[in-house]
Amino acid sequence: MDLSTHPDPWDDTTIYADDLSAGDVYELGSYTPTREEVMSFAEAWDPQFFHIDQGAAERGLFGGLIAGGIHTMAVFQRLSVADFWGKSATIAARGIRDVRFIKPMRPDITVAGRLVVDEVAHRAAGRSLVSVSGSLRDESGASVLSLSLDAYIARRP
Amino acid sequence: MDLSTHPDPWDDTTIYADDLSAGDVYELGSYTPTREEVMSFAEAWDPQFFHIDQGAAERGLFGGLIAGGIHTMAVFQRLSVADFWGKSATIAARGIRDVRFIKPMRPDITVAGRLVVDEVAHRAAGRSLVSVSGSLRDESGASVLSLSLDAYIARRP
Repeated sequence: MDLSTHPDPWDDTTIYADDLSAGDVYELGSYTPTREEVMSFAEAWDPQFFHIDQGAAERGLFGGLIAGGIHTMAVFQRLSVADFWGKSATIAARGIRDVRFIKPMRPDITVAGRLVVDEVAHRAAGRSLVSVSGSLRDESGASVLSLSLDAYIARRP
Repeated sequence: MDLSTHPDPWDDTTIYADDLSAGDVYELGSYTPTREEVMSFAEAWDPQFFHIDQGAAERGLFGGLIAGGIHTMAVFQRLSVADFWGKSATIAARGIRDVRFIKPMRPDITVAGRLVVDEVAHRAAGRSLVSVSGSLRDESGASVLSLSLDAYIARRP
C-alpha cells in the first residue's frame, strides 16, 4: 500500500497510529433513533416484522419495535467516525469481531458510545493495525451493543 | 421467553429450527449498490472521505469510492432476510463473529450472497441457537465479505 498516493485530509490535528496506546478511552457522543428511522432503515436492509410492523412488534416478544442489529452497528459507526475514525489517519477496516446484541436499541431511547484502544500493532508500509473495543449504552446505563474492530491507521509520515 | 405471545407471521411454509441441519446451503440473491446509495448510506452512517468524496477517493488508496463496511453488511442482511431469516421463525440475532472485509464493495458492481448453516443447538423455551456463515462475492467470484452469525430461531410448536 503506497501511502504517498493518499489524498490529504490529514493535517496537524490528525491522530496517527503513533499517537495511540492500549487503554486510551474515547467517550463518543449520543444518538436517539426515531421510530420512523428504525422502520425506514429496516425496510431497506432488514425487513423483519419486529423492526417494521408496529402492531405485530407490540404483540411480540419484545413488546414493541426494536431496531435491527445492523442499524445498531450503524449508530455506533456514526458516533465513532465523528469522534475517532474521522479524526484519525484511517486507511480501512479489516474486520469486526464478537458483536453482541445485548439489549435491543429502541425508538426514542438515547444511546451513547464509548471506544477503547486495545492494541496498536505497527506493520510495514507506514501503517498499524489498531484494535478497539466499542460499546453503546442506553439512558439507564445498560449495555446495548459491544464489539471489537480492527482497522489500519497510518503512522505519522 | 414466552413464545405463546409471539404474533403469527409463521405458517406451514415457515422454516423452524427443527428443519435446519449443519451443512444446509442457501444461495441468496444478488444486489448492485449505486454510487448514489454508497454515498448516501455513508453520509448518514459512515462519513469517511473514501465513502463520500468521489475526487478524494479516486486519488486515494482504493482508486475510487468504496462502500462502508456497515453498508456491505447491510447488503448481506437484506439478501439473507429475503431468502432465509424472513422465511424462518427468527426470534432475534444474538451476535456476529469474525466479520472480514476482504475486498471493498464498489458502486455498480453486483455482489451475490450465500448462507451456510454451521450448527443448530436446541435450547430451552422452544428455541434453538442457529449459527450460520455468510458471504458476499462479486461478479468475478472474488470474496467481498465473510462473517458468522448466531441467532435464535423457534422450534416447531
